[in-house]
Amino acid sequence: MNIEPKVLKGFRDILPFREMEKQYCFKRLREVFERFGFVPIDTPALEYTEVLLGKGGGETDKQLFRFQDQGRRDVALRFDLTVPLARYIARHHQELPFPFKRYHMAKVWRGEKPQAGRYREFVQCDFDIIGPDNARADFEILLLINAVMKALGLKAVIRLNHRGLFNRFLDRHGLLSRGPDIFRIVDKLLKIGREAAEKELRESLSAEETKILLRYIVPEEESFTETLLRLENLAGGEEEDSRRLRRISEYLKASEIEDHFVLSPHIVRGLDYYTDLVYETFLTDLPDIGSVCSGGRYNGLTRLYNDKENFPGIGSSLGLDRLLAALEILDRSVSRTCGAEILIFALEEASFPYYDKLLKQCHEKNRRAEIFLETKKLNAQFKYAEKKKIPWGFLAGAEEREAGTLHLKNLQTRETFRDIRPEEAFSKLEEYFRDEQEKQK
Amino acid sequence: MNIEPKVLKGFRDILPFREMEKQYCFKRLREVFERFGFVPIDTPALEYTEVLLGKGGGETDKQLFRFQDQGRRDVALRFDLTVPLARYIARHHQELPFPFKRYHMAKVWRGEKPQAGRYREFVQCDFDIIGPDNARADFEILLLINAVMKALGLKAVIRLNHRGLFNRFLDRHGLLSRGPDIFRIVDKLLKIGREAAEKELRESLSAEETKILLRYIVPEEESFTETLLRLENLAGGEEEDSRRLRRISEYLKASEIEDHFVLSPHIVRGLDYYTDLVYETFLTDLPDIGSVCSGGRYNGLTRLYNDKENFPGIGSSLGLDRLLAALEILDRSVSRTCGAEILIFALEEASFPYYDKLLKQCHEKNRRAEIFLETKKLNAQFKYAEKKKIPWGFLAGAEEREAGTLHLKNLQTRETFRDIRPEEAFSKLEEYFRDEQEKQK
Repeated sequence: MNIEPKVLKGFRDILPFREMEKQYCFKRLREVFERFGFVPIDTPALEYTEVLLGKGGGETDKQLFRFQDQGRRDVALRFDLTVPLARYIARHHQELPFPFKRYHMAKVWRGEKPQAGRYREFVQCDFDIIGPDNARADFEILLLINAVMKALGLKAVIRLNHRGLFNRFLDRHGLLSRGPDIFRIVDKLLKIGREAAEKELRESLSAEETKILLRYIVPEEESFTETLLRLENLAGGEEEDSRRLRRISEYLKASEIEDHFVLSPHIVRGLDYYTDLVYETFLTDLPDIGSVCSGGRYNGLTRLYNDKENFPGIGSSLGLDRLLAALEILDRSVSRTCGAEILIFALEEASFPYYDKLLKQCHEKNRRAEIFLETKKLNAQFKYAEKKKIPWGFLAGAEEREAGTLHLKNLQTRETFRDIRPEEAFSKLEEYFRDEQEKQK
Repeated sequence: MNIEPKVLKGFRDILPFREMEKQYCFKRLREVFERFGFVPIDTPALEYTEVLLGKGGGETDKQLFRFQDQGRRDVALRFDLTVPLARYIARHHQELPFPFKRYHMAKVWRGEKPQAGRYREFVQCDFDIIGPDNARADFEILLLINAVMKALGLKAVIRLNHRGLFNRFLDRHGLLSRGPDIFRIVDKLLKIGREAAEKELRESLSAEETKILLRYIVPEEESFTETLLRLENLAGGEEEDSRRLRRISEYLKASEIEDHFVLSPHIVRGLDYYTDLVYETFLTDLPDIGSVCSGGRYNGLTRLYNDKENFPGIGSSLGLDRLLAALEILDRSVSRTCGAEILIFALEEASFPYYDKLLKQCHEKNRRAEIFLETKKLNAQFKYAEKKKIPWGFLAGAEEREAGTLHLKNLQTRETFRDIRPEEAFSKLEEYFRDEQEKQK
C-alpha cells in the first residue's frame, strides 16, 4: 500500500530551477551584506513559546505553530527573525561587537490562512543594526536596501516615514488616541486612493480632522526637503524626529542616491514594535506587487529580555518570494548561473575513462560539466540536456577517443564543431561564455 | 518583568564567526556540487507524520518532534533529508530530469538525548543520484565525496563495502538470519578492536562461525583488488555485487584517485534502507571524530510512495558539525574570508560624507569595508575592529579630508602609512591581500 506523497497546505516543495534562483539571490544578498561588514548568525527554528510571544497576544499568537515537546515544554516555530534577534542580543551581548550588524536568512512559519502568494513556511532575509540610535545607523540600513536592489538588477523607490513625527502631529491635533484606526486606513491610502480613504476616515473623524490629516498624509509633487518642511510645520515645528529625517536626507544627498528615496507620510507599517523611522520598498517596474523590503527602528524590543540595558535597533526584512516573483515576471532568469554548462554524452561503456579525463579538464577550466550516467539512446541524453538547460555537449566514441578529439555541439542551435581537440573546444566555450556574460550586463 | 532569553535543550544560537565558517563550507560545497551538475531543491521542514515515518516504527518514531497542527493534522519536523527526497521524487518525477542529481543542505530535527556533539537541531548536507542503478552512479557519488574533501582542504579515506556481497557471504554460511546482531558488532570493529569483537560474536556464534566471519571482516594489509578477491571467494565467487565493486574500482583507478578508497568489509551502516554499496569517510588527521560523510545505495525507498515505478537511489550525507569541528581543530579558520577588511574610523561628524566617498571606493575595489557608526572615542573603535578581526583601518580627520588623504593603519601590527592618497592605500591593500591569499594555499 502506498503512502500518498502529499505536502501540508501552505507548504511547498521547491523545484530545482526555482531553488537555483533562490540560491542566486542568497548569494547576491550575502555579498552585499558582507561588503558592508554585516555578519551572519543563526538561531533555532524552535523556541520556548514564552520567548517568541513576549508580552504576546494578538494576531501572532493565533498564527503560531505551537505544541508540547517530549519534555512537556511549551514550544513553537519562530514566526519572524526579529524577536529571536532581540532574545539573542539579550543572551549574547557580551560576546558581540557593538554596533552589532547582523544578517539572517532563514525560514519562518505562520499558520495563516493560505492564499495566493502567502505561505505557511517562507524565507525571510533580515539585516539589522543594534546599538546606535542615530542618523548614521538609519542611513546605513537605507544605503543597504538601495545596494541590494541594485545588486539584483531591480529599479526601486524606498518610501520613508517617521512614526514619532506622525504621532507628534496626531497629538497636536488631539488624534493620538485614535492612532490605531487612523494607521489602518492611512496604510492603504495608495491602494484604495484618496477618496475612499477620506470616506473611511470620516466615519470616525470630524470634517476638520479629516481635512488636516489628509493634508499631512496625501503625497504632493514636492521634494524630500519640501515634504519634510510641510510635515514639520503641521506637527508643530522642528524636533529630534524631524532633525533625524533632515540629517538622513543630507547623507542620502552626499552619497548621491537621494533620487531613490521619497518621504511618504502615509507609510506606517503594521507591527507594534516600530518606534521611529519606518520604510517600504517598491519596484519601479512592478509597484503593484507591494513592498519587497520593509522595516523600521524598534528601540524597545530587547527590553523584553533584559531590562537593565537597552539595545535600540533598526532593521529590514526582504520578502524573498516577492523578489523571486518579480525577477521571474521581469524575465531576469538567473538559474543558468549555477546549472551545468557541458554534458559529456555517454556513447559507449569503453569510453568512460576518456570521458572522465574530459570531465577533469572541464573542471580545471572552471566549467560546470557532467557525464551522462548511462549509455542510453542519444535521444534520451539530448532530452536530459534540454530539461536541465545545458547549453553544450561533448560527443566522443571509439574513433574520437583514440584520436584524442571530440565533437563540440551547441545544444540549442545544434551547430557542431567536428573532430576538434579539447583545447580548441575550451577556447570556443571561453568565447561563448564571455559573450553570454556581456549580454547579461 | 523580564522573560529569560533561554534556548531549548539541544538547540543552539550560532555566533557570527561560527556562522561564517558554516557559510564558507556551504559555499564550497555548493561549488563542488554544481561543478558536477547537481541541482539544489527544497522541501518543507514540517510534513505529515505518516509521510515521514513510512512503514515506520523503531528509533526514528520516538525521536520525532510530532504534534497536531491547528487543523488537527498529525505533523512532524523532518528528521533527515532522504525520506523527504523519496517523497519528492514520487510526487514530482514527471517534472524532473533523470538521472536526477540533487543536493540539499538544510536543518533536520531529532529529539535525541542531547550529549557532547549531538544536537536536536542540526544541518545535513546531502547529495544523491536517483535513477540509474549502475557503477557509474556509484562512482560519481564517490568522486564527489573525494572532491568535497579536497575543496575543504581535508585529507580523507573513504571506506566502501557492499551489503549485498556481505549478505551473500552470510547466507552461504547460514548466518543471514543473525544479520542484525552481526551488523551491530561488526559496525564497531574499529572502535572496540578485533579481540573484543570476537568475544561479543562468540556469544551468539559458534567458534567456527566466528572464525569465518572474522576472516571476512577483519581488514588486511592488501589492495582493493586483493580484498575484493578474498571477499568474493568467501561469498562463493563472482556475482553482480562483486562485479559492481570491480567496475567501481576500475573507474577509481582510471581517475587516479584509488589511493583514497579502501574496501572495508566491516562498514555496514545503521540504516535499514541501504541495499547495496555503503561507505563512510574518515579524516586522515582526525580519524577518531568518526565518519564525516556517509551513505549508500537505497534501491527501494521511493516504493513507499509510488509502487508502480521504482527509482533506485544512491547518496551521501555530510556531517557539517563534525566537519566544522575538524576545521577548527586543524586550525583551518576561514572566517576571514567573509568578514570586513577595512574599518573607516569615525573621527568627526563633519567628515561622514568623506567617509562615505571612501567607502564607495572600497566597494568599487571589491573590498569589504564599513564606517564606524558613531564618533566615539578611538579606543572603542579599535576594540570594535579587534572583536570583528578587521585587519585594516582608514583614519581621516578634517585635515586629511581637505587634503583628500588618509592614514592607513594595519590594525594588528599598528604600522601606519601616514597621509597617503586613497589610490595608494588601495594598492598597498591589494598587495597585502594577495600575499594573504598565497599563504592560505
